[in-house]
Amino acid sequence: MVDANGETPGRSAESPGESLLEPELESRAASAVFDHDQPLKLGSGATLAPYQIAYQTYGALNEAKSNAVLVCHALTGDQHVANAHPITGKNGWWTTMVGPGRPIDTNRFFVICSNVIGGCMGTTGPESIHPETGLPYGLNFPVITIRDMVKAQANLIDRLEIDDLFCVIGGSMGGMQALQWAVSYPDRIFSAIPIATAARHSSQNIAFNEVGRQAIMADRDWHGGNYQRVNARPNKGLAVARMAAHITYLSEKALQVKFGRNLQDRDQITYGFEADFQIESYLRHQGFTFVDRFDANSYLYITRAMDYFDLEADCGGALSSAFKNTKTRFCIVSFTSDWLFPTSEARHIVHALNAAAANVSFVEINSDKGHDAFLLDEPEMFSTLRGFINSAAQARGLNS
Amino acid sequence: MVDANGETPGRSAESPGESLLEPELESRAASAVFDHDQPLKLGSGATLAPYQIAYQTYGALNEAKSNAVLVCHALTGDQHVANAHPITGKNGWWTTMVGPGRPIDTNRFFVICSNVIGGCMGTTGPESIHPETGLPYGLNFPVITIRDMVKAQANLIDRLEIDDLFCVIGGSMGGMQALQWAVSYPDRIFSAIPIATAARHSSQNIAFNEVGRQAIMADRDWHGGNYQRVNARPNKGLAVARMAAHITYLSEKALQVKFGRNLQDRDQITYGFEADFQIESYLRHQGFTFVDRFDANSYLYITRAMDYFDLEADCGGALSSAFKNTKTRFCIVSFTSDWLFPTSEARHIVHALNAAAANVSFVEINSDKGHDAFLLDEPEMFSTLRGFINSAAQARGLNS
Repeated sequence: MVDANGETPGRSAESPGESLLEPELESRAASAVFDHDQPLKLGSGATLAPYQIAYQTYGALNEAKSNAVLVCHALTGDQHVANAHPITGKNGWWTTMVGPGRPIDTNRFFVICSNVIGGCMGTTGPESIHPETGLPYGLNFPVITIRDMVKAQANLIDRLEIDDLFCVIGGSMGGMQALQWAVSYPDRIFSAIPIATAARHSSQNIAFNEVGRQAIMADRDWHGGNYQRVNARPNKGLAVARMAAHITYLSEKALQVKFGRNLQDRDQITYGFEADFQIESYLRHQGFTFVDRFDANSYLYITRAMDYFDLEADCGGALSSAFKNTKTRFCIVSFTSDWLFPTSEARHIVHALNAAAANVSFVEINSDKGHDAFLLDEPEMFSTLRGFINSAAQARGLNS
Repeated sequence: MVDANGETPGRSAESPGESLLEPELESRAASAVFDHDQPLKLGSGATLAPYQIAYQTYGALNEAKSNAVLVCHALTGDQHVANAHPITGKNGWWTTMVGPGRPIDTNRFFVICSNVIGGCMGTTGPESIHPETGLPYGLNFPVITIRDMVKAQANLIDRLEIDDLFCVIGGSMGGMQALQWAVSYPDRIFSAIPIATAARHSSQNIAFNEVGRQAIMADRDWHGGNYQRVNARPNKGLAVARMAAHITYLSEKALQVKFGRNLQDRDQITYGFEADFQIESYLRHQGFTFVDRFDANSYLYITRAMDYFDLEADCGGALSSAFKNTKTRFCIVSFTSDWLFPTSEARHIVHALNAAAANVSFVEINSDKGHDAFLLDEPEMFSTLRGFINSAAQARGLNS
């Protein structure tokens, strides 16, 4: 089988053989193009037209069109949730969650995952060609918000002739989108599963994002955002941004257990600046492989969208009013060792939902894996979500 | 009065007038030069010669030479602990702790603070001229360790004809030096006050240091460490390193309380990449003022010394054996919201000291200020240290 980019998956240099990969799930890659007559009106006041949304689907839509699940990706994720990645050849980023027999069972649900507006995997973003200039947008791309991302997704759902979604699910920035869906389109979303997320981006998280952006902009190969025009790429700055961010995805304990002060392929320290420690080697690897699959300007735009996310301010101060009269069923999930989106953020959402008399389940999962836990093998998360999804499916009249 | 660089303090552009400054404490600036016949033998096997140590002193040495206190500075600190800084014109970095009537009372103690080996405020470091080439060392400077820093300090103490110190005190990397003093020179140190520190640098902390180093090395103006030779300075990379580190000095709560999502000099977000948020403006200011007073290569060397610090490994695995038969009195201090050097690190030291039957006090101070708390106005820290210091002074036969 071939993946979204027409390449055979699992054959990249990073992925030596099929044996390491999940059995490939049948997926369909597609793009929806929205022309000048269907502009995307953005929160900033700007409009984006034309634009396209690249997406993958898995499973089949039932006749009643009542079994559609939208999976929303995080900052550096993309639409390849359960198929091999066209650039890296690696497994999709959430094959533990999405697939036959998985909590989001593709034998039962029609699963959609689209690359966000501002992204770099086929959806229109700063790398795309500006129709007026014929040149890549660069920093002429309009600044987008989580609400804009969700608006574009709603247009995609319209295009697919689906009135409402059985579920919107996502972790981290994906969880922000799930929350935004519940606020923007309360009648189009039967259930929402925001995981490891917040209703507004914290000061510390804005700070880490700002460090990443400054690292990119400090790279002389960034050229004020116009690096594509001169065939350059600010890979060093983007790698530093990724390295800094990556530390925040793991718990201190996970780092200590996984790497500690272990040395990398040597018996003793070398009294130099090579990667003596495994943690250094790991971070460098994370940084330098990331640049192969991600665009630096997209990193700027998507982190900015996260910084701007503030459902509380959007609804005038009381988060509960954002969820007034909601009929959506919510399942809020957090992880004990996640210090990027700590449980206090989840509780804040839950309190608001309770105040709005919403139908809400809340589970804090005991894990030492930090923020990344939502992407990893967390049996308690899977069993929680199976239970919630089955119950919601029953209420929706979907046969198991 | 004039300070170490012969300039009148408090007159820089950043410091508009004396009124904002602490009353100036009388300090003496000096340098000790160690010539080729007194090389510093380093942990790496290399030797450094000649070298000089720049230091400040406050107060007077008593006749018995029994009242000397060595203050050790942290990563980006220097010898200007209680006098105006010659570059920034700002107060010394620990005027709340050191001065007349302060916990380290300069009416009572002879206080010494020296710039560490590898530093950039007058002590020999990578910015210094390599005697063999006549050019700045750059990356030809030998990699140094915390133990090397302490060895150089011991040579300075010898030069001052002081046999033993009443106390060695420091926070963060300064605390590492206090611990190293107790291990390297147990008979020369009557008491030790390691604050907000650890006996070995954690995986997470190595990770943050590595991000800072990569940011510096990614700056094209770094020139492989030889930027002085071409009249360049990797200021952008160094600023990014400082920004990333600065986040780790504050607690999440402190950031939320101090900055939250407050906007900087504007009523609404601008949908752009300017510093819309106060936290962004604050971090940029921290980054761009830091480069005026600090050398990028020094940042590389000093972070590396911290990464290499591992008293446990040095003594073969059981930290308690490092403190065997110690007669030094210890006061270990940590802060509840310090996530860079959490209380678990302090407890680890305390357990080892207890196992060695050492005389040890341990106080975890309730503070929401994060790692930076040790530099700030923390009444409980001051009262704790007054008590410990007075008691130790009494035991030492020093009149109050």
